[in-house]
Amino acid sequence: MDKIYYLDNAATTKVFEEEFDLMKDNNESSFYNPSASYKHGNASKKLLNESRKIINESIHGTNGKFVFTSSATESNNAVFRCVHLRAGQVVLVSAGEHPAVYNSAHELSKKGVIVKDIPLTSFGVVDVQKFKEMITSDVALISIIHVSNETGAVNDIKELCAIAKQINNNIIFHSDGVQALGRIKINLRDLGVDLYTVSAHKVYAPRGIAGLWIKDKTSIDPILYGGGQEDGLRSSTENVAGSLAFAYSVKKLSEELDANYSKVLKYKDEFIERIFASELAEYVRLNSTDECIPYIISLSVPGIKGEVLVNALEDDGVIISTGSACSSKKAGNRILEAMGKTLDETVGSLRISFSPYIDYDIKFVVDAILKNISRFIKNAKVKG
Amino acid sequence: MDKIYYLDNAATTKVFEEEFDLMKDNNESSFYNPSASYKHGNASKKLLNESRKIINESIHGTNGKFVFTSSATESNNAVFRCVHLRAGQVVLVSAGEHPAVYNSAHELSKKGVIVKDIPLTSFGVVDVQKFKEMITSDVALISIIHVSNETGAVNDIKELCAIAKQINNNIIFHSDGVQALGRIKINLRDLGVDLYTVSAHKVYAPRGIAGLWIKDKTSIDPILYGGGQEDGLRSSTENVAGSLAFAYSVKKLSEELDANYSKVLKYKDEFIERIFASELAEYVRLNSTDECIPYIISLSVPGIKGEVLVNALEDDGVIISTGSACSSKKAGNRILEAMGKTLDETVGSLRISFSPYIDYDIKFVVDAILKNISRFIKNAKVKG
Repeated sequence: MDKIYYLDNAATTKVFEEEFDLMKDNNESSFYNPSASYKHGNASKKLLNESRKIINESIHGTNGKFVFTSSATESNNAVFRCVHLRAGQVVLVSAGEHPAVYNSAHELSKKGVIVKDIPLTSFGVVDVQKFKEMITSDVALISIIHVSNETGAVNDIKELCAIAKQINNNIIFHSDGVQALGRIKINLRDLGVDLYTVSAHKVYAPRGIAGLWIKDKTSIDPILYGGGQEDGLRSSTENVAGSLAFAYSVKKLSEELDANYSKVLKYKDEFIERIFASELAEYVRLNSTDECIPYIISLSVPGIKGEVLVNALEDDGVIISTGSACSSKKAGNRILEAMGKTLDETVGSLRISFSPYIDYDIKFVVDAILKNISRFIKNAKVKG
Repeated sequence: MDKIYYLDNAATTKVFEEEFDLMKDNNESSFYNPSASYKHGNASKKLLNESRKIINESIHGTNGKFVFTSSATESNNAVFRCVHLRAGQVVLVSAGEHPAVYNSAHELSKKGVIVKDIPLTSFGVVDVQKFKEMITSDVALISIIHVSNETGAVNDIKELCAIAKQINNNIIFHSDGVQALGRIKINLRDLGVDLYTVSAHKVYAPRGIAGLWIKDKTSIDPILYGGGQEDGLRSSTENVAGSLAFAYSVKKLSEELDANYSKVLKYKDEFIERIFASELAEYVRLNSTDECIPYIISLSVPGIKGEVLVNALEDDGVIISTGSACSSKKAGNRILEAMGKTLDETVGSLRISFSPYIDYDIKFVVDAILKNISRFIKNAKVKG
């Protein structure tokens, strides 16, 4: 195949090449254990803390500490395992959460914690009125995703957090910001959250490093016990090389945020225009609204299974997905269902996610999609 | 400074340079999410599973599965969090455990689990007779370190596991093999353990990847909840690049095991010979016996604080430590204390840990140590 257009950047991203040089140089000059008591160890620790500062400042999180973890899944699990909760207390999670939040939260019901799903609107965001009604005095923890990994829908975390805290100021508010980092401006101080999750491998940095931001005075149990690293919150030899790469990505994406957004918005606009200008437009339904970030487009082609189109498109040089890789094994799509989509729409869903660091031929991509819709539509059970 | 001799390889190791090429090539050719349903994702998953196979075969673990984690600390924590334990049941851990095991185990007492320390002999291994007496019908889980990270002492895991299983076959037996991997032959089938921890960054591979080996039919709760990766045992986007580097190291160390062992044994022998042939020999006590692996030597210089020597030696181009970086903040040294060492011996302890991939001038190293002992001994309160 001549060229492959990768349009699954919400699943994972290609690491910026220069980060390998950063990590390699660090290995030559300062591979020492940051917790070692000697000067070379201290120098490694200093590098780690410089990375931490770059990331924390970029998300305006200086009213809290940025704890390095190994993955967003670890950070999200930590929220439900390490926040102090008693049986009978209530945890609210949106129906639009990533499985790392959703499944961790629902595990708590085994311990007698009452876990409730906050409904979504048809636009893919939390239904604010229904959310408000769910905030009782028993609610101890709320987790609402910042930007949906399925549709790109953006929850108004500032408003939701304010609503919750106004009713009960003791509620701990967490947001999974994995798809927000590097794509939209994040100001944690302004959002008012207590906990916030981010990941490196979604921002062109390696796997094996991520973070959980913890607002000052938020009390959680240690994520891992051991040598007492990360102020006792997450023991484990610190991944300095990973932190350098992560900080590099965060800094670069922060500096290029506006330009990237404009570039990707053009991709989205052209993509949607071409799809809906075609004769096959009637077969396609858009699940992502104008309010969604342009980085992610969710579509449905009712009557054609998502996998069928994904596989056929791959052969034509276009990589998209049916949705989150983390949900790929499950039938249907919990999040689209929560938005009120029909079974045909969820089974026929596709996710296109752009990178500003890839130059796409959108006409080529859309033509490939349309060609394959046309090819499989004769088998379609349901028409649009 | 002209040259630095790094003798703290038990704390962390320098990554093999060629692994950066491996990871960089993987980023070019197969950075795709291994859980994605399309063919490029499947190809990434295949690479991950090839890494897993290399590692699992090298430790003769084909009667179990090798689950990738992010660090040995995570693996060790998982043992005490994910094995099913009830209040009133007993967990035995040796007094010589790494804090990631020791502290995780002792956290369980908050849940009503009874946690007991197995005493060490003066040689730094588990006291077999006392161990035998501790195995009651209430014991559900035992964790004994394979090779001590403080002294290099080697526990006879096969014997200890057999003793435990003979008394109560339902006991789950875990061993932390972090300092064993790549240094001595590991045959998990022969050892008979149910769970085994290893780490990449102690074997010249990057941080952010490690493993927990789980024998078939051993039931543990998932380590992380989410997308269901690692057969549902550890959700999180799989770190393929890290796995390739880890497998590369394991394969290389496995092939070079005997040659490396001989090389390091020569270092140890020359080191000890030179120390004890000197006029200052009377000030030095050896905590590592002939039975210990040659990779680690624990010494004590009673009357001189370990940190003082470590700092002075660093200025002379010799990097050693006072002991585990993970314990460096704590006063004294729990493990040397458990071996019956005096306070002066624990406060004056030093750890020298060799790499077969570094060419040491042992005469230079020993001369630097002796020079500094001589320099500080006048302040010594206690003589040997």
